[in-house]
Amino acid sequence: MPVYKAPLRDTRFLLNEVFDFPEHYRNLVNGAEATPDMVDAILGECAKLCEEVIAPLYHSGDEEGCHLENGEVRTPKGYKEAYEAYVAGGWQGLSHPVEYGGQGLPMSLGALKQEMMGTANWPFSMYPGLSLGAMNTLMQHGTEEQKQTYLAPLTEGRWGGTMCLTEPQCGTDLGQVKTRAEANPDGSYAISGTKIFISSGEHDLTENIVHIVLARLPDAPKGTRGISLFIVPKFLPGEGGALGPRNGVSCGALEKKMGIKASATCVMNFDGATGFLIGPPNKGLECMFTFMNSARIGTAIQGVATAELAYQGALAYARERRSMRALSGTKEPDQVADSLMHHGDVRRMLLTQKAIAEGGRALVYLATQYADRMIQGILSNDDAEYERWDDKLGFLTPILKGCLTELGLESANLGMQVFGGHGYIREHGMEQIVRDARIATLYEGTTGIQALDLLGRKVLLMTQGKAVRDFTRGVARFAVDLLKNEPRMRGRALVLLKLCAQWNLLTLRIALTARKQRDLVSTASHDYLMFSGYATLAYSWALQEAAARRRLRQGGSESADFYKAKIATSEFYFARLLPRAKGHAAAMAKPTGSIMDLKSEHFAFD
Amino acid sequence: MPVYKAPLRDTRFLLNEVFDFPEHYRNLVNGAEATPDMVDAILGECAKLCEEVIAPLYHSGDEEGCHLENGEVRTPKGYKEAYEAYVAGGWQGLSHPVEYGGQGLPMSLGALKQEMMGTANWPFSMYPGLSLGAMNTLMQHGTEEQKQTYLAPLTEGRWGGTMCLTEPQCGTDLGQVKTRAEANPDGSYAISGTKIFISSGEHDLTENIVHIVLARLPDAPKGTRGISLFIVPKFLPGEGGALGPRNGVSCGALEKKMGIKASATCVMNFDGATGFLIGPPNKGLECMFTFMNSARIGTAIQGVATAELAYQGALAYARERRSMRALSGTKEPDQVADSLMHHGDVRRMLLTQKAIAEGGRALVYLATQYADRMIQGILSNDDAEYERWDDKLGFLTPILKGCLTELGLESANLGMQVFGGHGYIREHGMEQIVRDARIATLYEGTTGIQALDLLGRKVLLMTQGKAVRDFTRGVARFAVDLLKNEPRMRGRALVLLKLCAQWNLLTLRIALTARKQRDLVSTASHDYLMFSGYATLAYSWALQEAAARRRLRQGGSESADFYKAKIATSEFYFARLLPRAKGHAAAMAKPTGSIMDLKSEHFAFD
Repeated sequence: MPVYKAPLRDTRFLLNEVFDFPEHYRNLVNGAEATPDMVDAILGECAKLCEEVIAPLYHSGDEEGCHLENGEVRTPKGYKEAYEAYVAGGWQGLSHPVEYGGQGLPMSLGALKQEMMGTANWPFSMYPGLSLGAMNTLMQHGTEEQKQTYLAPLTEGRWGGTMCLTEPQCGTDLGQVKTRAEANPDGSYAISGTKIFISSGEHDLTENIVHIVLARLPDAPKGTRGISLFIVPKFLPGEGGALGPRNGVSCGALEKKMGIKASATCVMNFDGATGFLIGPPNKGLECMFTFMNSARIGTAIQGVATAELAYQGALAYARERRSMRALSGTKEPDQVADSLMHHGDVRRMLLTQKAIAEGGRALVYLATQYADRMIQGILSNDDAEYERWDDKLGFLTPILKGCLTELGLESANLGMQVFGGHGYIREHGMEQIVRDARIATLYEGTTGIQALDLLGRKVLLMTQGKAVRDFTRGVARFAVDLLKNEPRMRGRALVLLKLCAQWNLLTLRIALTARKQRDLVSTASHDYLMFSGYATLAYSWALQEAAARRRLRQGGSESADFYKAKIATSEFYFARLLPRAKGHAAAMAKPTGSIMDLKSEHFAFD
Repeated sequence: MPVYKAPLRDTRFLLNEVFDFPEHYRNLVNGAEATPDMVDAILGECAKLCEEVIAPLYHSGDEEGCHLENGEVRTPKGYKEAYEAYVAGGWQGLSHPVEYGGQGLPMSLGALKQEMMGTANWPFSMYPGLSLGAMNTLMQHGTEEQKQTYLAPLTEGRWGGTMCLTEPQCGTDLGQVKTRAEANPDGSYAISGTKIFISSGEHDLTENIVHIVLARLPDAPKGTRGISLFIVPKFLPGEGGALGPRNGVSCGALEKKMGIKASATCVMNFDGATGFLIGPPNKGLECMFTFMNSARIGTAIQGVATAELAYQGALAYARERRSMRALSGTKEPDQVADSLMHHGDVRRMLLTQKAIAEGGRALVYLATQYADRMIQGILSNDDAEYERWDDKLGFLTPILKGCLTELGLESANLGMQVFGGHGYIREHGMEQIVRDARIATLYEGTTGIQALDLLGRKVLLMTQGKAVRDFTRGVARFAVDLLKNEPRMRGRALVLLKLCAQWNLLTLRIALTARKQRDLVSTASHDYLMFSGYATLAYSWALQEAAARRRLRQGGSESADFYKAKIATSEFYFARLLPRAKGHAAAMAKPTGSIMDLKSEHFAFD
């Protein structure tokens, strides 16, 4: 059974030695409070809560699951107490405005919290996590009254929130949404329809739940341009913050799922429920998507979280379990056999997990710096600043969400694999990580949707390749710097430069060919996404290796082993994982025919 | 929910048009009965049983699972009746000797049966499947009396069988086996110890269960050279075929697992149970491994089975579900959206599944031809013939077991992915395929063990590379033939020739370097295995494409679409999946340092 230990040494390395968060925070309007001491205290307290209170509920929550009785959802034993501890610590409002009860700290600190909580117990973390989506929407698009009414109790954590998008006939294709909203005489709306896959749609952790719902006004245009956004609270707000009457929204069923069983996935029935329009009519999708990048980075974090937890579990087992002798000769002659740590293929699996977890973590932190700056643009009403950082974040988002969830799943599977047959047995806890990780490539847009978002939208349609040129320019600048200042990294620097050139070339080639073969954008998208992911991870590892080498040169040797391990992992990544990019590069540029020509009716024969 | 349909068209293509099984059977001493008509009748009857009786229990068996009550295991509802139908059809003895009640047909036909049953319902198929292991061991190493006593009721299916190897402290490393066998005055032995992960260790399908157990005699040498093999029946044999007294072997617990929940995975306690030595003392491992290759091909079949079932489910859903419009323009204007079949990335996923299922199936059929010839060697007491084909089978076995189970799992995951969020919901049946597929890379030797078996044992130690040279010589001969006779396949032929050269070169390079760096055999093994798998699948697809082109030229156009689909899938394989071999080739040859140098204590830091 994996025992979660917050990887604080790695987090501090990234914050202080790779990305210089102290300087980053000094330049933020909401960063003054985020002093190194404060950040360190937050990390320590958060680790304590996660290790001691939240992590111990991970396995039991899976065994018990959620239960629906008389329309009420009961979360697993211990969840309510853990959530209360979380609320008491003021964690929910960490990165939300002081005027609504938050601590007003930068969003990146919220992401650090999400990562720790999510690694400790992903299904638990989804309850406060989904609220964040509702909070962000209210913060950005709500009226002042709506903010006072809903955002304040959400920020406190006293209320929970959801995002209600999916319906039985549509998930990705939200233009098919059928839920109706009809005007009431008092200016509110009557919402009717069925939403499915609603995480935290009903539960017993909070006294009220605020649903943010996509629905259609009667006169709305067809498709995505006719969708509006509504606030539908479980209990209508009463006088002076008290709860008013129960609203016409209820949980019709809990989905039985492969994993994340402690997270209540609800079928929600809206039966003329009272709703309040948020944002302009028919602009619901735009409003909903304001924070889509942030939400997807939240799911990318799940990739890092599962990679980390599976790594921790597998490493502990590999150190303890003994089997066979090392190929290079007996290593532990006084034992019945050598530990798994002496076997090359086990080490390959562990290092793959390590490279994914730590490489991915660094990319998430980089993305949260972009998110901080994007928010800075909002806070300072600087549209250009907002656009600039939102674009950068928008480019990284599908890469991180798409690749890190796929690689997180790989890491979870490798964790099981290190356990051998024992990995398949529930009591060891490794198979739960795989089942829980499996959702991450599906929700918040499947991997295929991320791939299309990246290549079709962010790269080709929106920027005609400029997004790649901008990102790779930064990578190339860093590589050139390495060539000058890190002679031991000359090889890596050249690899990075080659990757940058290849990435741009592949983009150009696809752009040109796709003018005639529109389907190429779709047939190439998956390999393009994965190529981008491996290239970006190469940047991540080169950044980390460079920082480690810098620190080693500066002496202060009490961490020398840590830095050497970073260099070793970087070496592993470049030697063993980056070569996969070759396969993706070769596959993506192939003509569309091998995918598009086979007729649908000829995929199978009796 | 996938509805299983036996892929008979594909099976007949492989049997009659790719591998010429009619000719193959004509050359076998036990092949006379396997006329084309007989084979066709067997396929049809087997398909009927699998589609109508066995497949419908797949999902319900997972939901219900097995239950242990008072030492007895209850299998899910319907299992007993389905098993009775299977026994009544004489299916268990299909490929076993007539003198013990079997039908004496070639082993390859048994594999066809296993494939259909396994695709219809893998956990169900494990009950008769495990018996085969016991039957093969008895057939090869039992005395005539042991065969009459045990093999006959096993062949009939009236009794079940197991293989009891694993103990809590060891699975792979059987030298650590502790179970003891002490001589009784009557020539039998008292067996004491605990075995875990025993599939079908206890159940209610048969009146008796015959355990084949690894244990140590009191004076046995340490390690693998001191292990003997024993027959331990649940009920001791009584007079005239009646059941005698209950033996001291019992099921202590059922393991709670990620999947294959309808298969009883038992902790078996041997408490001075009466056992009978089979084979010579201390030669238990050799005896157990006689049919190890066949058993592992049985698990390779699970890879094909899960790929096929997940493909059938995903294809049906993709044809029915509508989302968005095709990138190349609206395809179904009268519908609310285009079906998933019009989206390139969905097609990529489906074609990947198809290429794995059909490509893998062909390789399994090729391997079963080798197995038939190996058995021919046994039946005709021709040791050289036995060795020759056992060696060929032995080379293919780890490639098929290792790669096809990994790719089968990928296909299962892709099947879920095509369903989007619905794939994660249990009622749709796709996530069960993933959970059930997940065991296949773990049991019968993990993927890592297959990789070591291939590179370390079969290629380097046993044959100094000759195994690769022999196999690639056949592939190259075929490729040269293509160059002469299939002008449209010139490109594929050159790719195959290049792969053959590369495979041999990589082998040589590893062999030379490994003299100094022993660990290279381990650090390179996984990438070597996967490279070998993709190369072998390329051979499979070229064989199929060549057969399809041949048939197309011959006219008889009622199957033209089938052959064209084969060609299209081959094109897809070469364009989209084979490029992965590049990454594996690049990774395997890297020095061992990037895997072996990091100290165990530096894999993580507080």
